[in-house]
Amino acid sequence: MPHRFRHAALIGKYQAQGIRPMLQSIAEFLIGQGLDVSVERETALNTGWSDHGAYTSAELGQRCDIAVVVGGDGTMLGIARELAPHNLPLVGINQGRLGFITDIRASDWAEALGPMMQGDFEEERRAMIEGDVRRDGEIIFEGLSLNDVVVSRGNTASMVELRIDVGDEFVANIRADGLIISSPTGSTAYALSAGGPILHPAIAGWVMVPIASHTLSNRPIVLPDGQDVMVTIVAGRDSSANFDMHRLASLLHGDQVRVRRSAQTVRFLHPRGWSYYATLRRKLRWYEGV
Amino acid sequence: MPHRFRHAALIGKYQAQGIRPMLQSIAEFLIGQGLDVSVERETALNTGWSDHGAYTSAELGQRCDIAVVVGGDGTMLGIARELAPHNLPLVGINQGRLGFITDIRASDWAEALGPMMQGDFEEERRAMIEGDVRRDGEIIFEGLSLNDVVVSRGNTASMVELRIDVGDEFVANIRADGLIISSPTGSTAYALSAGGPILHPAIAGWVMVPIASHTLSNRPIVLPDGQDVMVTIVAGRDSSANFDMHRLASLLHGDQVRVRRSAQTVRFLHPRGWSYYATLRRKLRWYEGV
Amino acid sequence: MPHRFRHAALIGKYQAQGIRPMLQSIAEFLIGQGLDVSVERETALNTGWSDHGAYTSAELGQRCDIAVVVGGDGTMLGIARELAPHNLPLVGINQGRLGFITDIRASDWAEALGPMMQGDFEEERRAMIEGDVRRDGEIIFEGLSLNDVVVSRGNTASMVELRIDVGDEFVANIRADGLIISSPTGSTAYALSAGGPILHPAIAGWVMVPIASHTLSNRPIVLPDGQDVMVTIVAGRDSSANFDMHRLASLLHGDQVRVRRSAQTVRFLHPRGWSYYATLRRKLRWYEGV
Amino acid sequence: MPHRFRHAALIGKYQAQGIRPMLQSIAEFLIGQGLDVSVERETALNTGWSDHGAYTSAELGQRCDIAVVVGGDGTMLGIARELAPHNLPLVGINQGRLGFITDIRASDWAEALGPMMQGDFEEERRAMIEGDVRRDGEIIFEGLSLNDVVVSRGNTASMVELRIDVGDEFVANIRADGLIISSPTGSTAYALSAGGPILHPAIAGWVMVPIASHTLSNRPIVLPDGQDVMVTIVAGRDSSANFDMHRLASLLHGDQVRVRRSAQTVRFLHPRGWSYYATLRRKLRWYEGV
Repeated sequence: MPHRFRHAALIGKYQAQGIRPMLQSIAEFLIGQGLDVSVERETALNTGWSDHGAYTSAELGQRCDIAVVVGGDGTMLGIARELAPHNLPLVGINQGRLGFITDIRASDWAEALGPMMQGDFEEERRAMIEGDVRRDGEIIFEGLSLNDVVVSRGNTASMVELRIDVGDEFVANIRADGLIISSPTGSTAYALSAGGPILHPAIAGWVMVPIASHTLSNRPIVLPDGQDVMVTIVAGRDSSANFDMHRLASLLHGDQVRVRRSAQTVRFLHPRGWSYYATLRRKLRWYEGV
Repeated sequence: MPHRFRHAALIGKYQAQGIRPMLQSIAEFLIGQGLDVSVERETALNTGWSDHGAYTSAELGQRCDIAVVVGGDGTMLGIARELAPHNLPLVGINQGRLGFITDIRASDWAEALGPMMQGDFEEERRAMIEGDVRRDGEIIFEGLSLNDVVVSRGNTASMVELRIDVGDEFVANIRADGLIISSPTGSTAYALSAGGPILHPAIAGWVMVPIASHTLSNRPIVLPDGQDVMVTIVAGRDSSANFDMHRLASLLHGDQVRVRRSAQTVRFLHPRGWSYYATLRRKLRWYEGV
Repeated sequence: MPHRFRHAALIGKYQAQGIRPMLQSIAEFLIGQGLDVSVERETALNTGWSDHGAYTSAELGQRCDIAVVVGGDGTMLGIARELAPHNLPLVGINQGRLGFITDIRASDWAEALGPMMQGDFEEERRAMIEGDVRRDGEIIFEGLSLNDVVVSRGNTASMVELRIDVGDEFVANIRADGLIISSPTGSTAYALSAGGPILHPAIAGWVMVPIASHTLSNRPIVLPDGQDVMVTIVAGRDSSANFDMHRLASLLHGDQVRVRRSAQTVRFLHPRGWSYYATLRRKLRWYEGV
Repeated sequence: MPHRFRHAALIGKYQAQGIRPMLQSIAEFLIGQGLDVSVERETALNTGWSDHGAYTSAELGQRCDIAVVVGGDGTMLGIARELAPHNLPLVGINQGRLGFITDIRASDWAEALGPMMQGDFEEERRAMIEGDVRRDGEIIFEGLSLNDVVVSRGNTASMVELRIDVGDEFVANIRADGLIISSPTGSTAYALSAGGPILHPAIAGWVMVPIASHTLSNRPIVLPDGQDVMVTIVAGRDSSANFDMHRLASLLHGDQVRVRRSAQTVRFLHPRGWSYYATLRRKLRWYEGV
C-alpha cells in the first residue's frame, strides 16, 4: 500500500502577495483530501493569511510530512535548503515558466496533487554540498548548497588565482574570473552558463567549472563526491565565496574554501510519468532545432 | 604483508622490432626478482625472440599474475581489452612521451618495477563499456571498449541523425557528425577533442558527447552507468559504430547500438606516489600557462 | 528612380515535383508585373512544365536580370554557386522553415515579390571562396564555395594531420577530425556546429575552425581574406576535401588544398525591412530562452 | 632609404624600481646609435633617474618619434593608449615571459634595437575602440580601449541583462555575467578566456563575446567596425563598464554604453622576421601538444 501524506506544509514565493487565492484553494483541496495544512511564517505574513498558522521551517519540519511550494526554481532552492535538515519531501507548483525542479503548472495543480497526496508519485533525491571558509585555521563561514559553491573575483580585480586540492592531492592552480563547484542539480544552472556539462542527478559527483579561465586547456572536470575539495585564495582583491545565494565577501589571500558532500539530501516528488530527460529537452531546448 | 607477483606476462608494442633488447633486459630483471616470465605471441613473433615462449592472451591469463607492457597508450588500450577477461593487472612502460595510462619512462623502468613486483604500488580499476549492434532484433556485432563507443556519419553524408534512449526513457534526437559515449578513461581521449569534460576514473558514469552537433544547445551529459544506452540510426548514409578501434561500418536505418557497463574491469598498477591529477597536468597542460 | 527588373529566371528545388502549381502561380504573377519569365532546365524537366522554356544556368545568366528560387538554403546554395559567374541577384522563397538565406515564406511570396520586382529591396553581397587541390604541383581539382572548404579525415582513420600556411607564413600543424575554412555565409552552417563564431557578412574574412582538434588550445581564428590559405595533408588515410558539397576523396600525403577569395560574389535580395540579426535570432534562437 | 629614428621616448614599467640599470643601458645604447633620449615622467620618478628629463605623454608625443617600452603587455597597453593621440610607434622589451605585443627579450634588446632604430623593422597598426556611457542622454564617461570594452554584473547580482543594438538594428537581449566587445588585439586577452575566437589584427571588426551567458546558443559574433554598437543596461544591480582598465561602476538601468572605431591607431614595431602566427603558437601553445 502506498504511503499517504497526512500533514502538508504550504509555502509561497517569498514577497509574493498575489498568490493568496491560489494558496487558499490548494489548502482547501488538501484538507478535502484528508490532510492537515500548516502555512509557513513568511508566506502567512506576506499574504496576510493566518487561518493555518505561521510556522518556522523548524516547526514545519516537526509537524508536517510533505511540503507544497508555489513559486519558481529560485523559491524552491531557498526552501529546500531550509527544510533539508527535516527530510521533508517537496512538491513544486510553478506559476510562470516551468523550472528544472518545479514542474507542476499552476493550471494543473489539482490534477497533479490528488494522486501524489495518495502516494502515487516519482521521488528523486538530490545531493547537497556543505562547506566552510577558513582563515588562519578558524572557520569564519559555513554554508550549504543545493546548486553550487562559487569562488569569484572581486569587481575591481581582473581575476582571482586559486589553488585547488582534492583530498590530499594537489590538482591545479587556476587564474580565472572564478570557479564553480556544482552538484548535479546546479549543473543546469550557473555551471552550464560557464561551459560545464550536465550531470544526471544520480551521478555521485560534482563538476568543477572555471569561469573565463585564463588558459585554453580549461576543461571542466567531474569529481567523485567522496573526497573534500579545498580551494585556496592565492591572489586577487576582494574575492568572494557563494553557497547558493549566501555570500561571504572580502576574502583574503590564504583563505580556504572547503566543500564536502552533505549528509542531508533533498527529496523532490514529481507526478507519475515525470522524466528528467523531458525536463532537459523542454528547458534547454536540448538538442532541438535550428 | 604485501602481495608479491610470481609470473609476469611480457608484451611489447605490436609490430615493433627494435624493442627486443629492452624486453630482454626486463625479462632478466624480473627473473632476477624471482618471477617467471612468459612472452606474448605477437611480441615473440615480431622480435624473433622465443626464449620465454609465445603465448596467446588466454594462455597468459592462465599462467601469469601480472602483465608488463612496453608501448604507448594505444598499445596498452589494445592489450588491456584482450586481457580484461583474465583480470590480470597491467603495468605500462612508455618509450615515447608518457601517456595517460602508460606512466613509467623507458629510462626508469628498473627503478619503478622493483618495488612494484614486491607488492608496493598504487592500483586503480577502470570501468569498461560493452555493447552490441542489432539489426531487426538480431545481434550483428559485439564490442568491448575501455575508451569509448562512437557512432558516426559516413564520409559522404553530411550528418547522421540519431535517437538516444536511456533505460526506458527517450532522451533526444540529435543530428551531428556523430556521438561519443565515453568511459572516464576515454574522457581524456576523443571525447575531450569533441568538447567533453574530464571524468575522474572513480565516477560511476559515462559522458555522452555529440560531435559537431547541428544545434547550439549541444552540451555533453554525464549519465550513471547503471542503465543501458540505446542509440538508433534514424538517418544518414553509411554510418558506423566503433568500439575503441573495432569498427562496424555500413549501418542501416533502424540499426541499434546498445551499450552497458561491462562486468569486466581493467586493473592498472602505478608506482607508489602516482597521481591522477599530476598526469592530467602533464598531459593536458591542464590549467597551465599563458 | 529604382531599378525595375525585366526578366526573371524561375528555379525550383531540384527533384521536387509538387511545386509546379506554385511555380506557375509565381510565373503568372511576374508576367502580370511586366516581366518575362524563363524556367531553369532541371526545374522544367522535374515538373514537366515547359511553357517558359528549359534553360541552362549559362543561358539564364545571359537572358535574365533576376533569379527567383523556390526551395531551402541547400537549394539556394547550389543555384547561387552556378549563377555566380553571371552576377544575377537571387530571391529565395522557402516552402519549409525559413532559412538563413531563403527568407520569404511560401505564404507571403506575392506580397514580398511585388515591391521587389519594382526595385524596392535590400541587397547584400556575399563573398565566395575559390580554391584547388594540388598533387605534385599539378592542379587535380578546382572548387568554388559559398559556405566553406572542409578538409577531413577518412572514415577509417582516427584523425588527419594538417599543416596550415597563410600567405608565406607557417601558421600551425593540427591533428583533428578535420578543418573548416568558412566564409561569413558558412559561419552559421557547419563551422558553427564545430564551435566557430558567427561572422557578419560584411566581414572581409574567413574563420578557420578545427573539428574535434586533438589539442585543447584549439580556438577558431578569423583571418583576413586577402591572403591565400594553404592546407597540406601531412598524415591520415583517405582524407577528403569538400568545396560546399563538391568532394574530392582519397587525398594523398603532400596534397595541398589552396583557397583564396573569389572575384565572384553572390547577390541576395531581401524584402525591405529585412534584418540579418532578426534572422540570427529566429534561426539560432540566438541568445534566447531558458 | 629606410626611415631612421632620431629621438626615443624611454618608458619603464610603472612602479618598477629595479629596472633603472637596464633603462640606463638602453639610453646609452640609443645615444650611441645617434638618437636623443627623453624619459617618461613616472619612469623618472620611480627610478629616481633624471638625466634625460621627466616628460609627460603629451611632451613625449611632441619631442619624440619612437617609444621604447620596458615591461609586459599590461604596461604596453597603458602606454599605448596614452601615446595613441601622438601617433608614436612603440617597441616593447619584455623582462618576463614574452607577451603578445611585447616581443623583444630583455636579453636580446641590443641586438633587436640596433637594426630597428636604423629603420629595419616590421610595422603593424592596431585598431582602437572609443566610446562613452550615457545617462538620460548625457555623456557621463568617455573611454578608449586597445583591448576591449566590458560591461559586467556587480558582485552582488547574479547577472546583468543587456540590450544590444548595432547601428539602427536591434540585435539581442542577453542575460549573462557580462559582455565583451573586443578589438583584434583584445581577442587574445579576456575575450579568449570567455570563449571568443582569435581575430587577426588585420580584421576590420570586433568580436562580441558574452561571459557565462544564461542561454546555450551564446555564440560569439564578429561584427564589422563600421557601425556603432550600443549596449543598454536593462536589469542588474551595480553593473559596470570597463574600457581596458578604466572603470565606471554603479551603472543604472537605462544607462547606455556606446562604442565605435577610434580614428586613432597604435603602431607596434617588431624586429624583422616577426610573425603574428609564431606569437600565437608561443603564447597559446596554439594547436600544440598533447
